[in-house]
Amino acid sequence: MCYYPEQWPRGKWAEDARRMVELGLSWVRIGEFAWAKIEPRSGEFHWEWLDEAIDVLGKAGLKVILGTPTAAPPKWLVNRYPEILPVDATGAVRKFGARRHYCFSSRRYRSEAARITEAMARRYGEHIYVHAWQTDNEYGDHDTIYSYSAEAVGAFRLWLAERYGSIDELNRAWGTSFWSMRYDSFEEIDLPNNLVEEPSPTHGVDFIRFSSDQVKSFNKAQVDIIRAHSPGRPVTHNFMSQNTDFDHYRVGEDIDIASWDVYPMGGLLNGRLAAKDKEHYLRVGDPDQPAFNHDLYRAVGRGRVWVMEQQPGPVNWAAHNQSPADGMVRLWTWLAYAHGVDMVSYFRWRQAPFAQEQFHAGLLLPNSEADQGYLEVAEVVAEMKRLPEGEVRGKAQVAIVLDYESRWATRVLPQGRSYSASAVALDWYSTVARLGVDVDFIGQHSDIAGYKLILAPDLVIAEEAFVERLTRADAKVVFGARSGSKTRDMHIPEGLPPGPLAKLIDISVSRVESLPEFHSETVLYGNEAYEAGGWRETVRTSETVIASFDGEYRNGAPALVGSDKARYLAVAANGALLDKVIGDALGWAGLESLPDLGDLRVTRRGNLRFAFNFGRIPAEVPAGASAEFYVGGRTLKPVDVAIWRE
Amino acid sequence: MCYYPEQWPRGKWAEDARRMVELGLSWVRIGEFAWAKIEPRSGEFHWEWLDEAIDVLGKAGLKVILGTPTAAPPKWLVNRYPEILPVDATGAVRKFGARRHYCFSSRRYRSEAARITEAMARRYGEHIYVHAWQTDNEYGDHDTIYSYSAEAVGAFRLWLAERYGSIDELNRAWGTSFWSMRYDSFEEIDLPNNLVEEPSPTHGVDFIRFSSDQVKSFNKAQVDIIRAHSPGRPVTHNFMSQNTDFDHYRVGEDIDIASWDVYPMGGLLNGRLAAKDKEHYLRVGDPDQPAFNHDLYRAVGRGRVWVMEQQPGPVNWAAHNQSPADGMVRLWTWLAYAHGVDMVSYFRWRQAPFAQEQFHAGLLLPNSEADQGYLEVAEVVAEMKRLPEGEVRGKAQVAIVLDYESRWATRVLPQGRSYSASAVALDWYSTVARLGVDVDFIGQHSDIAGYKLILAPDLVIAEEAFVERLTRADAKVVFGARSGSKTRDMHIPEGLPPGPLAKLIDISVSRVESLPEFHSETVLYGNEAYEAGGWRETVRTSETVIASFDGEYRNGAPALVGSDKARYLAVAANGALLDKVIGDALGWAGLESLPDLGDLRVTRRGNLRFAFNFGRIPAEVPAGASAEFYVGGRTLKPVDVAIWRE
Amino acid sequence: MCYYPEQWPRGKWAEDARRMVELGLSWVRIGEFAWAKIEPRSGEFHWEWLDEAIDVLGKAGLKVILGTPTAAPPKWLVNRYPEILPVDATGAVRKFGARRHYCFSSRRYRSEAARITEAMARRYGEHIYVHAWQTDNEYGDHDTIYSYSAEAVGAFRLWLAERYGSIDELNRAWGTSFWSMRYDSFEEIDLPNNLVEEPSPTHGVDFIRFSSDQVKSFNKAQVDIIRAHSPGRPVTHNFMSQNTDFDHYRVGEDIDIASWDVYPMGGLLNGRLAAKDKEHYLRVGDPDQPAFNHDLYRAVGRGRVWVMEQQPGPVNWAAHNQSPADGMVRLWTWLAYAHGVDMVSYFRWRQAPFAQEQFHAGLLLPNSEADQGYLEVAEVVAEMKRLPEGEVRGKAQVAIVLDYESRWATRVLPQGRSYSASAVALDWYSTVARLGVDVDFIGQHSDIAGYKLILAPDLVIAEEAFVERLTRADAKVVFGARSGSKTRDMHIPEGLPPGPLAKLIDISVSRVESLPEFHSETVLYGNEAYEAGGWRETVRTSETVIASFDGEYRNGAPALVGSDKARYLAVAANGALLDKVIGDALGWAGLESLPDLGDLRVTRRGNLRFAFNFGRIPAEVPAGASAEFYVGGRTLKPVDVAIWRE
Ligand SMILES: [Zn+2]
Ligand SMILES: [Zn+2]
Ligand SMILES: [Zn+2]
Repeated sequence: MCYYPEQWPRGKWAEDARRMVELGLSWVRIGEFAWAKIEPRSGEFHWEWLDEAIDVLGKAGLKVILGTPTAAPPKWLVNRYPEILPVDATGAVRKFGARRHYCFSSRRYRSEAARITEAMARRYGEHIYVHAWQTDNEYGDHDTIYSYSAEAVGAFRLWLAERYGSIDELNRAWGTSFWSMRYDSFEEIDLPNNLVEEPSPTHGVDFIRFSSDQVKSFNKAQVDIIRAHSPGRPVTHNFMSQNTDFDHYRVGEDIDIASWDVYPMGGLLNGRLAAKDKEHYLRVGDPDQPAFNHDLYRAVGRGRVWVMEQQPGPVNWAAHNQSPADGMVRLWTWLAYAHGVDMVSYFRWRQAPFAQEQFHAGLLLPNSEADQGYLEVAEVVAEMKRLPEGEVRGKAQVAIVLDYESRWATRVLPQGRSYSASAVALDWYSTVARLGVDVDFIGQHSDIAGYKLILAPDLVIAEEAFVERLTRADAKVVFGARSGSKTRDMHIPEGLPPGPLAKLIDISVSRVESLPEFHSETVLYGNEAYEAGGWRETVRTSETVIASFDGEYRNGAPALVGSDKARYLAVAANGALLDKVIGDALGWAGLESLPDLGDLRVTRRGNLRFAFNFGRIPAEVPAGASAEFYVGGRTLKPVDVAIWRE
Repeated sequence: MCYYPEQWPRGKWAEDARRMVELGLSWVRIGEFAWAKIEPRSGEFHWEWLDEAIDVLGKAGLKVILGTPTAAPPKWLVNRYPEILPVDATGAVRKFGARRHYCFSSRRYRSEAARITEAMARRYGEHIYVHAWQTDNEYGDHDTIYSYSAEAVGAFRLWLAERYGSIDELNRAWGTSFWSMRYDSFEEIDLPNNLVEEPSPTHGVDFIRFSSDQVKSFNKAQVDIIRAHSPGRPVTHNFMSQNTDFDHYRVGEDIDIASWDVYPMGGLLNGRLAAKDKEHYLRVGDPDQPAFNHDLYRAVGRGRVWVMEQQPGPVNWAAHNQSPADGMVRLWTWLAYAHGVDMVSYFRWRQAPFAQEQFHAGLLLPNSEADQGYLEVAEVVAEMKRLPEGEVRGKAQVAIVLDYESRWATRVLPQGRSYSASAVALDWYSTVARLGVDVDFIGQHSDIAGYKLILAPDLVIAEEAFVERLTRADAKVVFGARSGSKTRDMHIPEGLPPGPLAKLIDISVSRVESLPEFHSETVLYGNEAYEAGGWRETVRTSETVIASFDGEYRNGAPALVGSDKARYLAVAANGALLDKVIGDALGWAGLESLPDLGDLRVTRRGNLRFAFNFGRIPAEVPAGASAEFYVGGRTLKPVDVAIWRE
Repeated sequence: MCYYPEQWPRGKWAEDARRMVELGLSWVRIGEFAWAKIEPRSGEFHWEWLDEAIDVLGKAGLKVILGTPTAAPPKWLVNRYPEILPVDATGAVRKFGARRHYCFSSRRYRSEAARITEAMARRYGEHIYVHAWQTDNEYGDHDTIYSYSAEAVGAFRLWLAERYGSIDELNRAWGTSFWSMRYDSFEEIDLPNNLVEEPSPTHGVDFIRFSSDQVKSFNKAQVDIIRAHSPGRPVTHNFMSQNTDFDHYRVGEDIDIASWDVYPMGGLLNGRLAAKDKEHYLRVGDPDQPAFNHDLYRAVGRGRVWVMEQQPGPVNWAAHNQSPADGMVRLWTWLAYAHGVDMVSYFRWRQAPFAQEQFHAGLLLPNSEADQGYLEVAEVVAEMKRLPEGEVRGKAQVAIVLDYESRWATRVLPQGRSYSASAVALDWYSTVARLGVDVDFIGQHSDIAGYKLILAPDLVIAEEAFVERLTRADAKVVFGARSGSKTRDMHIPEGLPPGPLAKLIDISVSRVESLPEFHSETVLYGNEAYEAGGWRETVRTSETVIASFDGEYRNGAPALVGSDKARYLAVAANGALLDKVIGDALGWAGLESLPDLGDLRVTRRGNLRFAFNFGRIPAEVPAGASAEFYVGGRTLKPVDVAIWRE
């Protein structure tokens, strides 16, 4: 439960705690925006209220997750050290008045963040009711990873010096011979904003890499302090869904559990789907977006994933904020559990009647009455009791590679305005999910043993070591277009794309083109014609051509090529073509799948099997004859859940 | 007539004046952009040309409205005091080179504005030909109400200190416990621009309130000076149509007559209508936008309203500038008269062949030939002579509440991108107008005695005192969605929305949602199904449910609820649903209405009845059998006017 | 050939040169981005690599075009003189890191540019292998003509003082009496950015004129230095297609040959056509955009035009970057030749695997394999050998007036958002081209002798002297709407538009209107009805009304008026109406034309006739019975070329 004692009169705390426990909740997160309440003036600490809040919550039976309050530096700190404020890409200072107003490169802010973290960790590190910690909150929210401050410039130069060793090496990597962009020393280098034209893509990606590393070290400093003072308590960070502004795996290395924010309503409206599908899923959300992120953050958390903020009703931050259908809070909670999530916390306990988020629902209305979400949580708690304990989500047989560096590569050099790496990844995930097959996410450093099929929708920067491991693994691999198209230096590989991937499949990409939204290409695959668009490549190969292009331009050119080990898709695909490509690949890898599930989704956690109906009409659950149902039954109403064991 | 002697050779003045009088005009406005001509260098006054201009105009028979020239500070003033320039939200100074380049918080500009006003008022205050004054011109044009200057910060802090008394009270109101936003003193507060994320909505609305008050005090200073030196002459300000950047009622309190700008062509293209309706009304404009503003500014002027600038042909400032149909200048002039306007001034006498507005038509072409507008004014003058004198627009039986604070509330916290409070208000007005019913606008401090029906499309911040007066009044009331949803502090009311309105109708709003453009909800009302969209609320009530929602989401929930006194509409409505809601409400309030008038509009001023045909085919006027026509007859051609007495 | 020895190891140069010659190329452009390689630190010149590069290329048999490297100032220069950086309209400095990061008003940059030009010209001016020079590169790329720097302000004031002589004259021209904008001295004047509202249009156009003159003088300084040291070598500049940010004729006066960039793929997507036509021409481009520019730059080069950069495959800079159809590189090369181009250089020899443009194709792939473009160039070289030599493109019988000042007039005062002067000009050109008629472009100072028909699509600012010459010429003239509507001072002409054009046709424009995209007007022309939109004028005339408006608004008003000498079109026309207007005008001028060619284009160079098929189906070439084909035949496949002699 997300709870803010600093926002409510003390008199309400005990009653709130009692009702949380009564509802069946066991965890409560507090503190992550409370710096000004803890330390209202420099060095003047007011612990008494927080002592009391933890006591009241703990005594009621709740385990406290304590957040470091660094996402919201207080005004006195900004007054004294205005240099901690972040600077936007136009050079304007981003002012105090909301949250996340700090620059990750500010040394002063790093020392202040360490100071407040240390103070909290010392006071509460071994507190009986403090069972876990959260660092900061939602790195990346409000576009705050990239700061163009003077300190960022300085830190970037040091980072470059470390990465490249010599300025000549940087000149080589950035290709500064191109437009007389040569540097004589690292001190000459500036940030890639306010240029006349786009910077060298290596300059662009290096700034993202640097900024990502700044987040990692900022976070790690807090983790180290907490661990020193609070042994045995896990540390988490609460990530934003699908944010790729920094490398989440690298931050994940330093924490014990990854947690994330489940807000599918805004996710739907901002997301990949066409308007008619958004209409269809208006109040249930994209069926695959939450599951995608559960699976992704399970990888970020190296197996451990929590939901720190579950949408309990309409929210406030999207362009429009529709209500979830009644039943969705229950459905999403079960979906999280099914995908391996071990704790679901709702944001927030009670709707705030003041300040920025007053249109954001809570489990309680502002007047403390139970709202719809409250009732649904009660239902889940009751249902949970029927289930056997100790079921663990196992490893999947299919893995999808999500690589942050590759995302940065297409962000900096998109080449086509309509290319969305985020939509590509979600489309591939969704296609597998609709065939009833579970998925793990992996990075290029993950263990890949045991996977039968590895999907790489756009592994733009393929590392040699990863390719080496793929070669030796048993898995079949499917690469999407653009895979292997850039080196670590953001160059075209020598010998053309897909660079090192040619070890897995003998192809060479001699031309790429991005295509406008109004145009589509035709692909012939097994005597059927499919439409595809947005991106097309010309591939030369000695391997089998599984599908080919049809039409005036390079008629007959390969669209899907396969070796014994790997397949390469030379076009951006979604819809029916992607269904065909993925469906065939599952069979090729010896995996079973179900017929297209439509609006149903199924998955398993240990011996438990789950089905979720995101559709508008009842659906039959694909349960065996001997299935034993814990929740629901063979026919599933819209917005309903079934749980069984075969 | 809007006339600029400073733009023309002296030799043309007498002839121009003669032709104005010949045309039948009696008023001429001059001076509002002439500062540099009056005082070309600091303290060096050149009155002689203005003396002569007033003399020439006055002797010809025209009454002069003299404008203070503060809308256009001269270059020497900007050179000497660059701090008078306004600052935009990015922090950039807005430079000299056009007009309105001043910050309302500049103390220097206030003293300079007072100085030039005093100089003019002393010289011409008792001039025989000066019959009225205008302060400045078009407050709010070019987005100039909000300035983010250093002086604005200082003045805002003082304003806050006055409003809140103590910083604790401000912290409470702004909800600064939310994200550690707590302030220790008023000196710490900054303007709500360039933040990382949106400010506290109370911070946002307070800045608008402050800016609005700055306009009021700026204006009042001029009015006081003029009144001291020019007794008996009314003072007006020329407002922009539908601008809600400041509280027009509060500025209106200090003047004698409100005047405004009638530019329906740009109003149509920028306005609420769908593209096919814009096409239908292309050269006649939105039939309700001018009438809406006549009625609104009649309220701002506490009964006295003028048109200071009537579009005489195509203008220059909209994205496209179509020509009005021939006849529209006449029609709009009569429409103004019918709605209680006592003086119509055309902008401008002669089209300027130079500078910014050379594509803006005049009554005369640049070469002094009469253009179409001139001919139509002549027609009106002739027709006017046939009418009885002294007819006064009476009080209506229906009032619409337009509340500026409520507009700011939805501007700062829109919650849904497609929510337009301006469109909502105009849609409600238009619906009443199409049923042939006259309307007054009221604010929360207006006298409400005598109204049978009060419509509050979105009275977001309902004041207790106003609710109290509604309770005691005879009027029935219809509230639109969002009414009563925020307190003066921009909080959700204790006990949920609609806060104080629950005294009039026992409802409680437990959930709101904003809906994307591609979705609509179905409402069942009297066995008919209607579509509505954009905003929907979940209402709990003990009152009668008049209409209800139909569909998968909360099927059967109340869409329109009614008590004996009030009705509450829980959805954003327009089109057929709004017709039904308003039509029923008129009957409920015991008012008569006409069948839907389509493109015809009717209204009355005293004993005179008027009809206007905005359509493309002839229409029958709803005149009684005994009607006696002054202008036109029973069948009205497109773009034509009928005036009769029953 | 565009070649960058500084980007490749020396070991590759000889082989590259050998292959260029083998392919049949004879010219190679180098050096234009190589400043940092030539002078890596201030005053430290490294000529040896360039000496060697020129030697290697020259000895292989290539003629070198040497570019001055001023489009890419090196970092050390920016470090030392940061004031050379350009400033954007918001006031932000545009930083180092790409190219074109200089302000044309920087005196320091002018002296540095002269210094490096002098150094190169001295060293290579009489070099045996250096056969031509290019100044800088692509003036205007990345929106770099307008800089809002402190030096630009100062230079603008001097320029104004020179133009106007006295501040009173400037006040008159700018119409500063309008809004108290009066200036006391030139020192008070600022640049027209960051204003509260648009500046005086004369202020706006004067800033463009000034900026254009800065480009001319910047360029001429280089030309003068080169001519002093490199007698007998022609000097060119490589222009951007359709850029109108400065007066290309005026820069063209100072060079020997105009060259330009042929990138039709991006040109199509950014261009005038509707989405369905963009789809139709997706991989062949707008059939008229390259020809338009060949003809235009032939005028800029006073008869001599080169293509310095021909697209050889997909590029990198458009929103989407589709591949040209196979065959288009050959087609575009022949199209250039047919339109009088004497040298076609491809950009670039080899695709760069690093830096900003790595998605830009070359004739070679990054690994030095021949790509499609290479093969097509080989084809052209072989075909070229079959043709007779010495054929020269003759003067056309039709001329289109393209006037840069007129473009600036509509840019500064568009009056309608959808008005595109660029689309208007290309539509008129295309209409003539589809009728098989060749065109020359002319400016107002061009020789007009011999033309039978002169088309002026929007000669907004018509110079008296030009009108005088038109009067005396034999040519018939067709004016589009807006012609003659502004004086040199950006005023409406005394006596109304079309000002001096009334000498050619007795009309007077009393009203103009711009119309939104959703509306169209109907024009009756010879008993047929046509649709037109966007712009309409009310014209009074004593001449023959050839076509007239039909509809509710001013029904019957003239849409096309004609005298013996001239016709005036009072509406924005394209499609069928423009076909009719132009088709009729050709007949009226005694010119022969072909039936609508559809997707075919024909033209002639000397005795050679050319046909190009931009369509998707075969087409019949309009060759006479006795035609003798050098390339292709009577039936032309898609993307194919025929060359014959009658
Ligand atoms: Zn790695
Ligand atoms: Zn009030
Ligand atoms: Zn000229």
